[in-house]
Amino acid sequence: MSDKYEISKKNRVRQINRKAAYDKKTVHGILDSALLASVAFVQDGQPVVVPMLYGRDGETIYLHGARKARVIRLLEETSTACLNITHVDALVYARSAFNSSMNYRSVTVFGTPRLIDDREEKIRALRIITESTLPGRWDELRPPHDKEVKMTGVIAVTIESASAKISSGMPDDEPEDYDIPVWAGILPLTSAFTTLQSDDRLIEGVEASAAVRAMQGKVL
Amino acid sequence: MSDKYEISKKNRVRQINRKAAYDKKTVHGILDSALLASVAFVQDGQPVVVPMLYGRDGETIYLHGARKARVIRLLEETSTACLNITHVDALVYARSAFNSSMNYRSVTVFGTPRLIDDREEKIRALRIITESTLPGRWDELRPPHDKEVKMTGVIAVTIESASAKISSGMPDDEPEDYDIPVWAGILPLTSAFTTLQSDDRLIEGVEASAAVRAMQGKVL
Repeated sequence: MSDKYEISKKNRVRQINRKAAYDKKTVHGILDSALLASVAFVQDGQPVVVPMLYGRDGETIYLHGARKARVIRLLEETSTACLNITHVDALVYARSAFNSSMNYRSVTVFGTPRLIDDREEKIRALRIITESTLPGRWDELRPPHDKEVKMTGVIAVTIESASAKISSGMPDDEPEDYDIPVWAGILPLTSAFTTLQSDDRLIEGVEASAAVRAMQGKVL
Repeated sequence: MSDKYEISKKNRVRQINRKAAYDKKTVHGILDSALLASVAFVQDGQPVVVPMLYGRDGETIYLHGARKARVIRLLEETSTACLNITHVDALVYARSAFNSSMNYRSVTVFGTPRLIDDREEKIRALRIITESTLPGRWDELRPPHDKEVKMTGVIAVTIESASAKISSGMPDDEPEDYDIPVWAGILPLTSAFTTLQSDDRLIEGVEASAAVRAMQGKVL
């Protein structure tokens, strides 16, 4: 199996292509460090984009929603889904508006969505989504009720094509602009989990597990 | 002018609609606090989603990219664009996987994209995008060169329909699950700008302006 996604019309990064990456390690790394994917689909010929939680297992991305939700029904019927995941890492203050930008890590994935019908496969996928978002949590919780599994729609998207685009470092200004006496540089943006807040209705004496506590302070 | 967006098939929040809001104040507030929009369009009948910087002026959202970029060319030709902006505010650790979720603030906007040809209108829109992302910066920078304006494509999307969806607070568990002795609560996620880092090629003695320095520590 190749360690890179093949470059095609679908996934080729067109603008500033020196920032592109197609290796699976880079793509998977960005996929595994984010929480939400922006998932696009077509309804009545019009584009719609919705944010969704997801989980990855190898070359499969799992998405879920209410079984009756529009996004699940439309993904079920569609031949291609497109997902984008983007972290913003910094504002880039260049010496011109034209070169001002952001530093970011972004992945775009294309694949054919498949609705999971099999109960065991569905539960396995829900476990992967839960564990991607809340590591260590699945085994702390009661098993899902049959009704809950039935009410949930799970979509598997096998990655057929993907690309990453990463922008980092200092501004890239026009040669003559370096003589302008204006400040230039970057302002980093950090997204991090803070401190757990217990539910008021918690049973007295029940504490968060080590797995849950380990999420505190984690930087995305 | 109404202070709410009309509810139609396009923008009606279908799932957990008690979390929906259609008033312009809420929608604009979320739009003004984020950096990137996920913009969906259709290419060869397939959905594509790309992250884009944006700026808002009243009921108009401005997007930009290279004039020749696929996203600009396709938005120019399309009758409807869909944008989503979502902040994640917390992980929600419920007492079941089914009720586990996130707290978030999300806006979805639909509108007809229009490519801006007029030079003055284009520069005004670029100023709005720059000022939305980097407040106070436009007037610190040299005016854009004609070539830069020509190389940039700017799209105006007038908001025709929009909705917000906000999820906050503690887990919403099944009544019987409150008796399970498992920890439940939330883990907030904070996105904040940290400390300015100067470009190595900065002219000695040049310092960041008050407007740029004021961004340090700002929470999104």
